[in-house]
Amino acid sequence: MILGSNSSLPAYGRHHTSQILNIGGLSLLIDCGDGTQYQLLKYKVKTSKVDHIFISHLHGDHYLGLMGILFSQQLTGRKNKLTIYGQRGLDEIITTHLKYSGATFNYKINFIELNPEQQTVIFENNEVEIQSFPLTHRIPCCGFLFKEKTKERKIIGEKIPRDFPIENFQKLKNGEDILDERGKILFKNEELTSPPNKSASYAYCSDTGFDETLIEKINMVDLLYHEATFLKEKKKWARQTFHSTTEDAAIIAKQAKVGKLLIGHFSARYNDVQPFIDECRDVFPKTLPAVEGEEYIVR
Amino acid sequence: MILGSNSSLPAYGRHHTSQILNIGGLSLLIDCGDGTQYQLLKYKVKTSKVDHIFISHLHGDHYLGLMGILFSQQLTGRKNKLTIYGQRGLDEIITTHLKYSGATFNYKINFIELNPEQQTVIFENNEVEIQSFPLTHRIPCCGFLFKEKTKERKIIGEKIPRDFPIENFQKLKNGEDILDERGKILFKNEELTSPPNKSASYAYCSDTGFDETLIEKINMVDLLYHEATFLKEKKKWARQTFHSTTEDAAIIAKQAKVGKLLIGHFSARYNDVQPFIDECRDVFPKTLPAVEGEEYIVR
Repeated sequence: MILGSNSSLPAYGRHHTSQILNIGGLSLLIDCGDGTQYQLLKYKVKTSKVDHIFISHLHGDHYLGLMGILFSQQLTGRKNKLTIYGQRGLDEIITTHLKYSGATFNYKINFIELNPEQQTVIFENNEVEIQSFPLTHRIPCCGFLFKEKTKERKIIGEKIPRDFPIENFQKLKNGEDILDERGKILFKNEELTSPPNKSASYAYCSDTGFDETLIEKINMVDLLYHEATFLKEKKKWARQTFHSTTEDAAIIAKQAKVGKLLIGHFSARYNDVQPFIDECRDVFPKTLPAVEGEEYIVR
Repeated sequence: MILGSNSSLPAYGRHHTSQILNIGGLSLLIDCGDGTQYQLLKYKVKTSKVDHIFISHLHGDHYLGLMGILFSQQLTGRKNKLTIYGQRGLDEIITTHLKYSGATFNYKINFIELNPEQQTVIFENNEVEIQSFPLTHRIPCCGFLFKEKTKERKIIGEKIPRDFPIENFQKLKNGEDILDERGKILFKNEELTSPPNKSASYAYCSDTGFDETLIEKINMVDLLYHEATFLKEKKKWARQTFHSTTEDAAIIAKQAKVGKLLIGHFSARYNDVQPFIDECRDVFPKTLPAVEGEEYIVR
């Protein structure tokens, strides 16, 4: 769900960047500009279920809402550990606020410092892998790649013989054939199973200049969020400020053969977002605009 | 104008504490919780005209919106100096944010550290005097007293003789009689002037437990803003958290003989504000609730 879709100055009812991603049973908060707690309330997001917050970089429009969320979580009785992924310095910022607030939290904050130089796995469980990767911005900045792991093959119930040993089910789900003691194939896996559900993948490129090295990092993701701060007429200004135009975002999406492109981080100079969509679709037809309060299906 | 009227958890459309006060030609921002820049936009306040920001204390609901305002002021081309009055540590918080943002400001920030122990004049010009004074809270916390200075007497045009020397006008405005060379009264001041317009005074008590020492500090102000976080049934809880009940606020207003009482900082446990008004009016009839977007005349 999109909580904020605008760039550094809020305008036309659009807020600073923030998103909620639901994947593999997890609810993840990605970036949180000033006042994000109000957007979470407005869209009835259960912040208590968010155990991981990803902050791409330390420009105010991407993280200034974090402290408000941390204080509110304390006030609403949070006990669960909260893991925050951010650039070097975010821990110092949090600590400095806490030092003068007199507050102590009844929940643990686990801070993971991002590596802004290199693609890195930052979280993994049985269902999901999350990576950070460098973006091209004025200060250290990371994108994030969220991937469901390859799922288990689906057993076709009616093809399973009546006396089939139960301990072999996991092997089938794992894609293995069933062998006898001498290693001879008793059942070929593909006769008893069908392919797994497709795993979904989402890439988030918050603030970045045009950067072709992104193509391999986000190759063939189902949904790519890529900033498009400016229309293509402002290409020169985009280069100077390490931001992207519509065309930049669409070229990256096209070359990386992604499923769909979601654009946001619109500059406050534009009221109407339609020209952004039009310009992107000229290059990459499957483009959608980030609209606050809207939910997008990744796959 | 009230920008936020709720306490630490936003609720029922009510935001964190923030106010704009217009006095003596100045536009002053008093406290600014998370996301205050959105409230300033919503109510069309010209933030560029605000040259003084007063932060009562370092609990998040009173200052977390400050950095967003500072960054937005830079982005919208501010050049004027901005003076920020706050508790020890606020400068360190600002500096820590700036250190990692890579930002430099094209305007000067002048930080004035408040004295949380003693009533102190913190600003003065020809028209206004502003004082801070200690409140009773869990961490160092100040209230603010804004007073228009005594205004000049008004000259009654038709009573001024035709050949009256122009250099004597200021003496009349100052309340002086006009004397001849030997010191004899030529014109009695009160015959040529009428009394000045009344000077307005506003006191702001953001977060405080019941504190009778406030009475002399805010004695007879035209308008007193006093927090009333809880209804009187929660008196015990108010005492524990160094907050006030409706009754506490109304007793202070009554004993200080203020003109009107404005209450706010309502706890998120209450949806309806009417019982707050009713309970205060039982003690002090001239009570108004802080309603976001509403403007109140101080005098």
